[in-house]
Amino acid sequence: MIKKNYLLSPGPTPIPETVLSAAAEPIIHHRTSEFSDIFMETVEGLKYVFQTDQDVFVLTSSGTGAMEAAVASTFCQGDKVITLSGGKFGERWGQICRCYGLEVHEVTLEWGEPYTKEQLADELKANPGTKAVMATLSETSSGTVYDIQGYGEILAQSDAILIVDGISGLAATPCPIDEWKVDIMVSGSQKSFMIPPGLAYLSFSTKAWDLVEKSTLPSFYFDARKYKKNLEKRTTPYTPAISLIIQQKKSLDIIKSMGLEKLFEHHRILADATRAGMKALGLELLSKMPGNILTAVKVPGMIDGIKLVKTMQGKYMAYIAGGQDPYKGKMFRIAHLGYMGGFDIIIALTALEMTLSDLGFDFKRGSAVEAAEAILQENWE
Amino acid sequence: MIKKNYLLSPGPTPIPETVLSAAAEPIIHHRTSEFSDIFMETVEGLKYVFQTDQDVFVLTSSGTGAMEAAVASTFCQGDKVITLSGGKFGERWGQICRCYGLEVHEVTLEWGEPYTKEQLADELKANPGTKAVMATLSETSSGTVYDIQGYGEILAQSDAILIVDGISGLAATPCPIDEWKVDIMVSGSQKSFMIPPGLAYLSFSTKAWDLVEKSTLPSFYFDARKYKKNLEKRTTPYTPAISLIIQQKKSLDIIKSMGLEKLFEHHRILADATRAGMKALGLELLSKMPGNILTAVKVPGMIDGIKLVKTMQGKYMAYIAGGQDPYKGKMFRIAHLGYMGGFDIIIALTALEMTLSDLGFDFKRGSAVEAAEAILQENWE
Repeated sequence: MIKKNYLLSPGPTPIPETVLSAAAEPIIHHRTSEFSDIFMETVEGLKYVFQTDQDVFVLTSSGTGAMEAAVASTFCQGDKVITLSGGKFGERWGQICRCYGLEVHEVTLEWGEPYTKEQLADELKANPGTKAVMATLSETSSGTVYDIQGYGEILAQSDAILIVDGISGLAATPCPIDEWKVDIMVSGSQKSFMIPPGLAYLSFSTKAWDLVEKSTLPSFYFDARKYKKNLEKRTTPYTPAISLIIQQKKSLDIIKSMGLEKLFEHHRILADATRAGMKALGLELLSKMPGNILTAVKVPGMIDGIKLVKTMQGKYMAYIAGGQDPYKGKMFRIAHLGYMGGFDIIIALTALEMTLSDLGFDFKRGSAVEAAEAILQENWE
Repeated sequence: MIKKNYLLSPGPTPIPETVLSAAAEPIIHHRTSEFSDIFMETVEGLKYVFQTDQDVFVLTSSGTGAMEAAVASTFCQGDKVITLSGGKFGERWGQICRCYGLEVHEVTLEWGEPYTKEQLADELKANPGTKAVMATLSETSSGTVYDIQGYGEILAQSDAILIVDGISGLAATPCPIDEWKVDIMVSGSQKSFMIPPGLAYLSFSTKAWDLVEKSTLPSFYFDARKYKKNLEKRTTPYTPAISLIIQQKKSLDIIKSMGLEKLFEHHRILADATRAGMKALGLELLSKMPGNILTAVKVPGMIDGIKLVKTMQGKYMAYIAGGQDPYKGKMFRIAHLGYMGGFDIIIALTALEMTLSDLGFDFKRGSAVEAAEAILQENWE
């Protein structure tokens, strides 16, 4: 049989064919008005997705680079911050902050458990002098979407700023950063932005920028001030990943023509269809607050989780993700993120049914597909 | 007339068509053995170009990111370093080091003037306790190639290490880093490596790695230790620019099949042809030690240098570079770097002749082309 590859991981995600082919065009120089026009249209498109009037800076790095830029551009040694750590990526905030000598109060959450704005308000009261709270919009390791709107409300009433890792969440789930008072937003290119990895995005509110101007941490490549100064000149401080920016402009055109609201709704439908499939199979979700981005599923006790993921990836070439850290071998994650259509979910669920059958799991063949199909058809337009 | 674009700048440089089209292939996940195989072949290819047995790390960033990684991974606050600054990029070493609180002794050179190993030996003697000397293989702002081999000899006899920015020079001019005792070498993807910008490369000698292990500067994304640990697992610490790595593997295949020695010779021939053209026009080079990478030319007094570059870029669409900083408007730079053939030099010189004619410069039409043509034909094979 001819076997095709299916990318069902929470980054990198599938890319529209017209965006892929844009990378094959000859490179133009980055210090030309031709490139500046493309670059500024890209920035405008990013502002549309961020839902902000503030600048959005474009870094050539992974998303982690923009997380580091958010920290290294903003604070001084010894500054007190609270990090919310509900998984592998929430943890990363603490690692970066400690690396720069910040005083980190890390709130460790059970993976998949909610954390309310009231809890955050209490935490803030218990930690006077906190300069910032660092949260995650969609925690990729658990599929959980947190209450960024609520956190924004609490922090807007304080001197502290809200920093959000929106690397996998932006453009897939609502997060209007100006309206929700997100002071620093970080994102990356290889998730819902529908291009390959290599670019990261970063925005600052006025409240956050006041800290940037007083920051004394060492930072050269990731110094946000340089990006601001150069954006005024319609460029970047260092040679950017030109081909990726050209691709980002193309996929932002697709995103804009669809419209953000419809894109959120699209992701919600795919998520609902995926979860209907899991329910039909009698499988349990890991997260109590699963988002539009990905669905994390507990591996049933009688099944070898490592083998499940290996069979999906190897035999059926449906590249889903396994569990990380404490959930290694105990969880699998199916993304419904980026350039995916309804039938991609059917492929994912069919491959899962075939895998579960291979592994001797007891279920009614076709039940997951049936459940998902109904939801997809109902919402098809 | 149909007008074509010609990229004659010292980065980004033209890219082979087969390498361009590789970026249009669907993205594969970076945590797969399929990608790891490509990644490790890329690393092997980079080691071939670096001429080293040491690891070469792959960063998703511009070359400046790898320069910062070389500093932030290696030193402690207050460490004494000497930076050799013969242009815009030599200056950058000092900027990065000061940003991290190093004690910088900056040797400021006239643009295009040589700096001998004897001068370096004296400088080292005058600055006891120096931990490192930071130099530039090919200074892009002046077209000068420095005596890295000589600096390596001097530093091998001392406790200090030699750090070299080889961003525009590697693969175009000889610099066998193990043989020449370069302790840290930095390079980037968009020059002689024949792919778009977005990747940077970094290697460490054992002598340099001893410092890395004692380094206390804050560094997360650019921490070389993380790259080493992950390279042992055939991967990168953070999501890499997958499509660029796939392209880099393809262009390294081209570089390897041609062979480094022949590639140096190729660049030398293009450089000689370009300079023969300049001589025929009666134009003066800026550098006393011009390299294989680019030719920096003084704009004759009666000509408006800004207009010259604008005419080349705008009217003839031959994208050469202008002068930077003190040489703005007083210099132009033609690169012969990356995927260029002999006829590309003829295009550059023809466009230059047409431009000089437009600007009223007195010269014999065809003389630059004639001189270059003779050299190209003589060496053609």
